Amino acid sequence: MARVNENFLKLASGYLFPEINRRKNEWAKNNPGISIYSLGIGNTTEELGPSIASAMIEKVNKLSNRNTYTGYGDEQGDAELRRELASFYEKEYGVSFPLDYFFVSDGAKSDAANISEIFSQSSVVAITDPAYPVYVDSTVASGKSGNFNGNSYDGIVYMDAREDDGFLPRPPKVKVDLIYLCSPNNPTGAVFTAERLQEFIDYAIENKAIIIFDAAYSDYIRDEGFVRSIYQLDGAEKCAIEINSFSKNAGFTGVRLGWSVVPKTLVCENEEEGVVNRLWNRRQTTFFNGASNISQAGGIAALKQEGRRECRRLVDYYLENARIIKTNLEDIGLKCYGGANSPYIWAKCPNGLSSWDFFDFLLAKAHVIVTPGSGFGKNGEGFVRLSSYGHREDIIQAVNAIKGAMNE
Amino acid sequence: MARVNENFLKLASGYLFPEINRRKNEWAKNNPGISIYSLGIGNTTEELGPSIASAMIEKVNKLSNRNTYTGYGDEQGDAELRRELASFYEKEYGVSFPLDYFFVSDGAKSDAANISEIFSQSSVVAITDPAYPVYVDSTVASGKSGNFNGNSYDGIVYMDAREDDGFLPRPPKVKVDLIYLCSPNNPTGAVFTAERLQEFIDYAIENKAIIIFDAAYSDYIRDEGFVRSIYQLDGAEKCAIEINSFSKNAGFTGVRLGWSVVPKTLVCENEEEGVVNRLWNRRQTTFFNGASNISQAGGIAALKQEGRRECRRLVDYYLENARIIKTNLEDIGLKCYGGANSPYIWAKCPNGLSSWDFFDFLLAKAHVIVTPGSGFGKNGEGFVRLSSYGHREDIIQAVNAIKGAMNE
Repeated sequence: MARVNENFLKLASGYLFPEINRRKNEWAKNNPGISIYSLGIGNTTEELGPSIASAMIEKVNKLSNRNTYTGYGDEQGDAELRRELASFYEKEYGVSFPLDYFFVSDGAKSDAANISEIFSQSSVVAITDPAYPVYVDSTVASGKSGNFNGNSYDGIVYMDAREDDGFLPRPPKVKVDLIYLCSPNNPTGAVFTAERLQEFIDYAIENKAIIIFDAAYSDYIRDEGFVRSIYQLDGAEKCAIEINSFSKNAGFTGVRLGWSVVPKTLVCENEEEGVVNRLWNRRQTTFFNGASNISQAGGIAALKQEGRRECRRLVDYYLENARIIKTNLEDIGLKCYGGANSPYIWAKCPNGLSSWDFFDFLLAKAHVIVTPGSGFGKNGEGFVRLSSYGHREDIIQAVNAIKGAMNE
Repeated sequence: MARVNENFLKLASGYLFPEINRRKNEWAKNNPGISIYSLGIGNTTEELGPSIASAMIEKVNKLSNRNTYTGYGDEQGDAELRRELASFYEKEYGVSFPLDYFFVSDGAKSDAANISEIFSQSSVVAITDPAYPVYVDSTVASGKSGNFNGNSYDGIVYMDAREDDGFLPRPPKVKVDLIYLCSPNNPTGAVFTAERLQEFIDYAIENKAIIIFDAAYSDYIRDEGFVRSIYQLDGAEKCAIEINSFSKNAGFTGVRLGWSVVPKTLVCENEEEGVVNRLWNRRQTTFFNGASNISQAGGIAALKQEGRRECRRLVDYYLENARIIKTNLEDIGLKCYGGANSPYIWAKCPNGLSSWDFFDFLLAKAHVIVTPGSGFGKNGEGFVRLSSYGHREDIIQAVNAIKGAMNE
């Protein structure tokens, strides 16, 4: 008799975005004909760069000719793309890694969720609170937690990221095996300095723990003093897996392309050299058949000089949106975090409002959707996340609507 | 201290294709300048259909314009593609399923491997021998087997597919929870008749087991009397998940696109209505972010009238290759199975040779690579698989080389 995976049944239902939609739809029904602006979702809105789009069209044309057609590629990714990635790490971070440390995937979300599988079910997992929900959900689904206790999951070590400490977590006080970090952070926009991230590397080396470092927003870092790749820091190649993506810098949210770096030098309990790299390779070759060759052609172009310029312009655009949101909200007295070196603004709810109360206020008075911070973890309560992904004109209208509502 | 997943360590190393490459490379080194033909790999070689390629180029152009750009789509797949799939099932199979039974993915391999995750680790799994290695490997990696005993894995129920029974398996004599079937079969080319597949449905309903039916080669079925979708048979909606792909009919092996059908009517131990569908939805929304929107645009085109015609022409081409291989091998006295309604020819090694002996013979004497049947399971011993994927002129040269070598 078929039985479902009991760990999946532990998952609390995805509450946040369905609930946002429910409230939005209810309000829209009661207020017909009024436009609603969204600063809610982290979804890109601007077009692909021309050289990147051309490369994808050229690839489709090659696939349309039997002399240049290709079928299955390497599950680990096209060798040219991996060479471009290796060269990118060399140029941008001064880090020299062999090709077989790089695994191309269909995006950072897949890797962030699937990476858990190659580690023992008995692993103790530490996750920042607040955080992107996929870290917690994949930890639970892969059997590495206890039950949901109404607030959080038993067995997961939550690392508090609090306002009085710049929303950066500190290494756990207990021994853990796996640590998820995201910088620039979703949802808070907090970015690790070298000093603060080094604390985690030191902890991980001491405890033979492995850090899963989600750097999906690394291209948004423009100021000095912040870490763009964890491998810029000493010792990271012994304890860190880095996940990244073309979603937010090349606009590939729908095109789908990402990568992970899994060094052979990682240290864990099993002393076989390169065992983590070997098992991730086994996982990817068994459960995956490579990212789309068209997306990969786009990724190769995105890493070349012209493509990098196009990505920079795209990120500039969203960063300017973020600056507009942040400065305008600050003008009306809202306390804001993030919004520089990050596409997200993390705004403190005024007058002690809860996340959902402020959400309801902004929906009713400004007709603007934001994301309640409490949906990302208990430390998100009292905050909302505003996203800079949107057309400039829509962002300006939304911000003006918020200003109008707050000044009433 | 990080510990790796002990179930992954149980996996015997992927022996088959690395060993083929090792022998091929060694031979090439000792015989420089001699061309080697391949009938070894199931990788498509012919170009994309024009209407399908145009749709993908149009999608890239839409993504290049901010007014028509789109980012994240639904993790379950674009609604238009799901509508086309539902309409395809209606037209081709007379089966009427709602959209939320369909889940678009990046390919059949991913789904065939990942589907295991939503079932309990204590599940007893039945797998055809010989079979596509992903079923066994994902069963082992997800903790549903014992150790490798040098020949097979403890705990897996192998269903023998033997020459004297048309290479079709029979339902297990013991109680199992999950059953993997593939028809047309890789590697044997055997295709289920309604009668033989109904035995499995009856077994599954009686035992509340779930069948995972891999129909990736269904478009190769041209003759009457065979089952193209398991849902053509009574009761399948209570016990079967169907996996399919655009790889082998639209040439999307590198483009990546597939789908699974997970009915809400499936019956299992947990009596919550639609629980399997709900958990697969949870799995896909947590561990996956949708297939590439460019690939999906191609998939939509492939399901429309012109696209279906292009797919038919492509499959015709490979079927003709298969016919050429089969009839020529039969001319020289080789006993062949498959090769009609399937892209694979399953040839019996002559003179009692083992799979690897015949492989070595064909490499040395004909300079042709085939796939040793023993690599797919113990019942594959004494057979080799020949693939019809290749340019016609290469197929003919390879076949002539085999004929020459066998007639020497």
